[in-house]
Amino acid sequence: MKLFIPGPIWCREEVLKEMARQPLGHRSKQFTAIFSGVLDKLKKVLGTTADVHVATSSGSGVWELAVRNCVRRRALVCQCGAFSEKWGDVAELNGREIVRLSVEPGRAIRGEMIANMLKKHDVDAVLYCHNETSTGVMNPIEEAAEVLRERPDVLFLVDAVSSLSGVEIDVDRLGIDICLASLQKAFGIPPGAAVFTASARAYERAASLKDRGYYFDLLAFRKNAEKGQTLVTPSIPHIYALNHQLDSMLAEGLPNRYARHRQMADVVREWARRHFAVFAEKGFESVTLTCLANTRNIDVGALNKELLSRHDCVISDGYGDLKGKTFRIAHMGDMQVSDMRQLLQWMDEILGLK
Amino acid sequence: MKLFIPGPIWCREEVLKEMARQPLGHRSKQFTAIFSGVLDKLKKVLGTTADVHVATSSGSGVWELAVRNCVRRRALVCQCGAFSEKWGDVAELNGREIVRLSVEPGRAIRGEMIANMLKKHDVDAVLYCHNETSTGVMNPIEEAAEVLRERPDVLFLVDAVSSLSGVEIDVDRLGIDICLASLQKAFGIPPGAAVFTASARAYERAASLKDRGYYFDLLAFRKNAEKGQTLVTPSIPHIYALNHQLDSMLAEGLPNRYARHRQMADVVREWARRHFAVFAEKGFESVTLTCLANTRNIDVGALNKELLSRHDCVISDGYGDLKGKTFRIAHMGDMQVSDMRQLLQWMDEILGLK
Repeated sequence: MKLFIPGPIWCREEVLKEMARQPLGHRSKQFTAIFSGVLDKLKKVLGTTADVHVATSSGSGVWELAVRNCVRRRALVCQCGAFSEKWGDVAELNGREIVRLSVEPGRAIRGEMIANMLKKHDVDAVLYCHNETSTGVMNPIEEAAEVLRERPDVLFLVDAVSSLSGVEIDVDRLGIDICLASLQKAFGIPPGAAVFTASARAYERAASLKDRGYYFDLLAFRKNAEKGQTLVTPSIPHIYALNHQLDSMLAEGLPNRYARHRQMADVVREWARRHFAVFAEKGFESVTLTCLANTRNIDVGALNKELLSRHDCVISDGYGDLKGKTFRIAHMGDMQVSDMRQLLQWMDEILGLK
Repeated sequence: MKLFIPGPIWCREEVLKEMARQPLGHRSKQFTAIFSGVLDKLKKVLGTTADVHVATSSGSGVWELAVRNCVRRRALVCQCGAFSEKWGDVAELNGREIVRLSVEPGRAIRGEMIANMLKKHDVDAVLYCHNETSTGVMNPIEEAAEVLRERPDVLFLVDAVSSLSGVEIDVDRLGIDICLASLQKAFGIPPGAAVFTASARAYERAASLKDRGYYFDLLAFRKNAEKGQTLVTPSIPHIYALNHQLDSMLAEGLPNRYARHRQMADVVREWARRHFAVFAEKGFESVTLTCLANTRNIDVGALNKELLSRHDCVISDGYGDLKGKTFRIAHMGDMQVSDMRQLLQWMDEILGLK
């Protein structure tokens, strides 16, 4: 089955094979060598001097980590769809106050919106979703970074769940304190683990907070990573697969990788504009997935049934309230431009387009 | 490499192959069918009418879940080694008071000890480690259950990380509120996920607590499991592998499975008594691993080097303070009596015993 949904996505056989290796003892020298190498290569791939970590959890686990370690009292939630909204819920469930900056689904979060909210509200962190997977909007992170550069007291926490490694995010220059991603998106690995960066400010803030807990204690992540270890028994299969993928990414070359993602996006957007419409506000279309406005009112479920039975693949219906009104095609990870062309040709045939 | 350490343990090729299957969408009907089946079979294997859940975390993540959802103010920690001690730390890190009932490493936690502590201290939960992986002690859980039967106000939270599915634990009859285990121990699956049971009382307690958070919110686990889903994107490879293992366990037959674990333990203990000594108090030796007192003062590191280079396998040194003074051999999961005999023969040869 070839998944064209925005996570989990289709994985290469050679990546899946890594998942199937015998585990090593997680306190053994052999494993420590592999894990230290993973952290080094991850820093290289993300182009950061910040620390990087691997969590045995979904990306939303790292939402909780970011909140418990980096939000002191109140956070601004930049809400532009179901997932960015949910991160705000996570903050509330962990006893933090939140202020919601909300735009219509499909619209982007602009820098001036954040600046206005920061003038009005006393917050100590911003929860910012770089790539809203439910609407296919990629927010202009440079704008947010520019606003936050003036506010060193406000931590910049970035959910790049479905964009990191598919699009360049200059964590250091943008001043991001936590930048998190799931492995089952642009990293092209099955779900079950997440990665994130952590700045010196993030650690400082964490050290000032008492209720960090155990499993998502950022300072415990640092203490163990320094020894090439993990606080808890990690998902070793995911670390094997990540190790392999990081090598593949470095072999492909990051500029090539980013260019491939842009090309796939171009192909899908062009098709989307020809037959439907792109749901995202112009100029803020995601590079890793396209959310299409269902202007022809097609039956997405029926389309998927045909894709599945004829070609053993599926795309994604709209998320939540957007079900039926939109549908989504992922173009990330190890997919190629040729895969996208093939999918679109199949959709042409099934929908009788052209 | 054949791991004879008490987790992660060696896994069968057919289980590893399951880890390597393409992921499905975690909200798809196909995945829901698999996951519902996993929950049904897990209930069968554990012989419980309680709910069962799968967490995308290590077993220690479920320690945090148990504390955040089931400890109101103060817990009694039954401490008989490094891991049971650490669970108490996790409770403190999550803002709970704890009272520690502590015995010397190698000794068991007896029912009367718990009864005495409950008379002296006002606690609302007991953190009880069934099988202390650092000392090879299997605590007499019937005794604890008998004491707690008189105290319906005190929740019975059981860490069966390295024993569940290798030894029968009658969750319902023992009145256990949370019984948790990691997959990389007796389940014979690579690390990265954990399973646990939850009683009606556990849910009630959770509903009365405000700081359950998001990732480990027990009520969110229930709500999603009822629909055959998970709160967050789960580790799908682990669910595939668990699905396969549960089928294997039911095919082997649980009485046969438990008997096999007892036989392996008998073989290793007999060898241990002949050449060294069993570290655990007599009558409370673990069925899933044996911790040996290093009475001959052998160099465990050197032994492991030989095992690794000659036979591509390793055992485990003692844990923490017990390093060098003890060493451990796991006999759980899909290991066979013949594997244990083979290992012991290799150790005889390397150590010049017999």
